Amino acid sequence: MELKEIPERVRKKHGIPITRRDVVRVFSAVLASSDIWRIVDLAGIPVLATCEVLQALAEKGLVEFKNARVVVTEEGRRRAMDLGISEAKELSCPRCRGRGLELSLFSKLAEEFHRLAKDRPEAAQEFDQGYVTEETTIARIALKELLVLGDDDLVSLAASLTRLPRRVAVLDVDLRIVRFLQELARREKLVLEVYQHDLREPLPPELRRQFDTFVCDPTESFRGYLAFAQRGIAALRGPGGAGYLGLTRLEASLEKWRKIELALLEAGAVITDLFPNFHEYVNWPYIETMRAWPFLPVKRVPGRFEPWYRSALIRIELVEETKVENVRYAGDIFTDEEAATT
Amino acid sequence: MELKEIPERVRKKHGIPITRRDVVRVFSAVLASSDIWRIVDLAGIPVLATCEVLQALAEKGLVEFKNARVVVTEEGRRRAMDLGISEAKELSCPRCRGRGLELSLFSKLAEEFHRLAKDRPEAAQEFDQGYVTEETTIARIALKELLVLGDDDLVSLAASLTRLPRRVAVLDVDLRIVRFLQELARREKLVLEVYQHDLREPLPPELRRQFDTFVCDPTESFRGYLAFAQRGIAALRGPGGAGYLGLTRLEASLEKWRKIELALLEAGAVITDLFPNFHEYVNWPYIETMRAWPFLPVKRVPGRFEPWYRSALIRIELVEETKVENVRYAGDIFTDEEAATT
Repeated sequence: MELKEIPERVRKKHGIPITRRDVVRVFSAVLASSDIWRIVDLAGIPVLATCEVLQALAEKGLVEFKNARVVVTEEGRRRAMDLGISEAKELSCPRCRGRGLELSLFSKLAEEFHRLAKDRPEAAQEFDQGYVTEETTIARIALKELLVLGDDDLVSLAASLTRLPRRVAVLDVDLRIVRFLQELARREKLVLEVYQHDLREPLPPELRRQFDTFVCDPTESFRGYLAFAQRGIAALRGPGGAGYLGLTRLEASLEKWRKIELALLEAGAVITDLFPNFHEYVNWPYIETMRAWPFLPVKRVPGRFEPWYRSALIRIELVEETKVENVRYAGDIFTDEEAATT
Repeated sequence: MELKEIPERVRKKHGIPITRRDVVRVFSAVLASSDIWRIVDLAGIPVLATCEVLQALAEKGLVEFKNARVVVTEEGRRRAMDLGISEAKELSCPRCRGRGLELSLFSKLAEEFHRLAKDRPEAAQEFDQGYVTEETTIARIALKELLVLGDDDLVSLAASLTRLPRRVAVLDVDLRIVRFLQELARREKLVLEVYQHDLREPLPPELRRQFDTFVCDPTESFRGYLAFAQRGIAALRGPGGAGYLGLTRLEASLEKWRKIELALLEAGAVITDLFPNFHEYVNWPYIETMRAWPFLPVKRVPGRFEPWYRSALIRIELVEETKVENVRYAGDIFTDEEAATT
């Protein structure tokens, strides 16, 4: 039936590649919830693509937009049945929220982190910020010598609070974050080096080949992603070094995922773990000015702790000496056609 | 210190590439347990490599083999401290065992599966079999039109018991499994087509481009892995089709992982999920004749439900028309230098 034409429509309007299966994902999501943010979350494809698929389904009379809700029509339910499409199911483990990790060991750390993080700078659109929940940050700390590239999530704070790493360094372009972390490091006597640095610039020589782990949550344009990942890889001491990177389905199509994965493998790394819904985000204050806002078929500002924006955690490990070049990136690295939040 | 020379020693003896970090993994595992199977499990590198690293640590006086146990010496503890190596920690969520999935929905299915699977054929070394725990099989079923390539795990049985898929087909080379499944399909009136097929042979034309999902747990030589994966990909209808593949760290080094991942991406797929310890295996009856047995520094036959052999679940999704060729593979596809169980 006519679901087939929808991918082409999305590609024409936004330049975002999606498949028929992605259309089915949106349809399944609508069958499970009438809330726009829950639909965006369950569909798990770029936000702008979900918006356009919803418009297409509405034009076909399969859904309606009423009272800021997305409602499946009688006709929609009938079609879903005919097509064998059923409602999206959440199968995440309720204990670990699908992360597969047990974090009760870290409950004292979580308390301390909460106390120190409460005066953090608010997320700024200028730097494509938007931080994860505190629980997510705790779930993400890895150890020894750690470099954090861009840290509105305060991963460096959580890591240094464990007192386990020998060294924690953090690079951020945002002076508010740099000062916030510097002040905490001084007051709490944390092993924490903080540098103001724009990741479009090459990694400073004193940070090259110095770390066994890096963490970053890159901006998701393809060039921006590479800029972050390559700085991280250049900071690793060599084979055996590991990197943890975030990646969403909401601002990156699977075609972009594939390009990113190829680039990581070609840099000499292997993907060892990929947890699809590892990070949950705190809603940011600039939600009504984000790029996707005008395209939402129904508009409702989500609550602050009502997570709909999630990202995968990808763990890579270097298996050979990397050939990554430490080049300069000019211009805007934050946006491309799949961007939703900048 | 001298840990550096160990990777070279492993490469010389077995041709298996490991890094210094892998040596540290084995050391951390020994600090956490004296049981050989638990050590193999926690180390998470090819079994033969773990054996050789343990021999090297013993020659340096850092561990001893006593009463079929691997014991860290005083000197070993001191060195571990100096090097900042601490015991391996298990952070898996106890509810979902690190899978991130909630399976209580499937408890009735699990009962029925257990009843039907109890007379299954035993694992045979000839076909590199070794099946996962029943719980693991339940965790792995995916839906709609499903092709299972090699099914000593009885995934096809679990999937058809849900009565959700429209079609379930299964290929296996082992006549015992083919007959077992055929008999069950008849008796229980399951939607289940069973074919005897050697995966070295191209996929039969009537199965090409017919499915939206495939599942397989390939043999782990690089050629063997490709044979399974390519048959699966050739069976998918096109972009949006998904495959679920197993891959261990115990018979595949990260270098081999990287080659496999590159091959999957080059076939037009993207990796969407990679859960490192998704599958747990039931111990097989041929454990004392497996390739790694003579190399174990201490020999103990593990209990049947004492899982030490685990594998990752990799989910791929096609994002473009695949260019995979449906070629014939001649000769032995089961073994290479990293094989431990065949």
